Amino acid sequence: MTYESGNVFAKILRGEIPSQRVYEDAHCVVFMDVMPQSPGHALVVPKAASRNLLDADPATLAHVLPLVQRIARASKAAFAADGISVMQFNEAAGGQSVFHLHFHVIPRFDSVPLKPHTGSMEKPEILARHAEALKKALADMT
Amino acid sequence: MTYESGNVFAKILRGEIPSQRVYEDAHCVVFMDVMPQSPGHALVVPKAASRNLLDADPATLAHVLPLVQRIARASKAAFAADGISVMQFNEAAGGQSVFHLHFHVIPRFDSVPLKPHTGSMEKPEILARHAEALKKALADMT
Repeated sequence: MTYESGNVFAKILRGEIPSQRVYEDAHCVVFMDVMPQSPGHALVVPKAASRNLLDADPATLAHVLPLVQRIARASKAAFAADGISVMQFNEAAGGQSVFHLHFHVIPRFDSVPLKPHTGSMEKPEILARHAEALKKALADMT
Repeated sequence: MTYESGNVFAKILRGEIPSQRVYEDAHCVVFMDVMPQSPGHALVVPKAASRNLLDADPATLAHVLPLVQRIARASKAAFAADGISVMQFNEAAGGQSVFHLHFHVIPRFDSVPLKPHTGSMEKPEILARHAEALKKALADMT
């Protein structure tokens, strides 16, 4: 399996299509999932080109999980979540639909099941509001 | 939320109850999930005491994802999987049932949905066979 640079996250990383950006550093970008499985569903996306975890450079991975943790903590605070589900899918059989490595950080609420990921697009103004809430929670943590 | 040292994974780490061990290093242990959602379902468990990702020491996290990657690669090879799902749950609302930080590494197969995690215990001899297959695949990778 090879990396295809025309995938939608690569286009977002290159700025060719818009996203509701939450955070960026030298290694990763965080933006809102446009088809959230729960309100506030964010994606942590390493900038380095890899199809998924299976072909990623191990050296880049060390940076990722501490950031996933920060986003999980911010998400719990921003959305008053009861829990957080972190998911990372590899290949279509593993649940992957965009073939650039990414980590789902999903706020969860008691007795509320996840919506399927094949749902409809969320309104841009709602995604923008959620991105702002996450940004504020991140700023409050530091 | 606080860490309770009586949880089942803490007992496994202390050797108080058995597990089908796949791998161990200074930071983590890998063993088979006794209620696999798919054949070969393994758990990557940091030794450091934390309830989940939310309260984990960021310094310990840098070691974890490269190991999750190695187990994912080994799992794909060992079980001829079509994909791998990695999941990490925080608090009951987030899907967590054992309150010691752990990462699920689950082999996936085309058109086969995950079994619910509340399923019955797998036979010890099957778990042992899967642990051996993962160990062999890890050894073959190095």
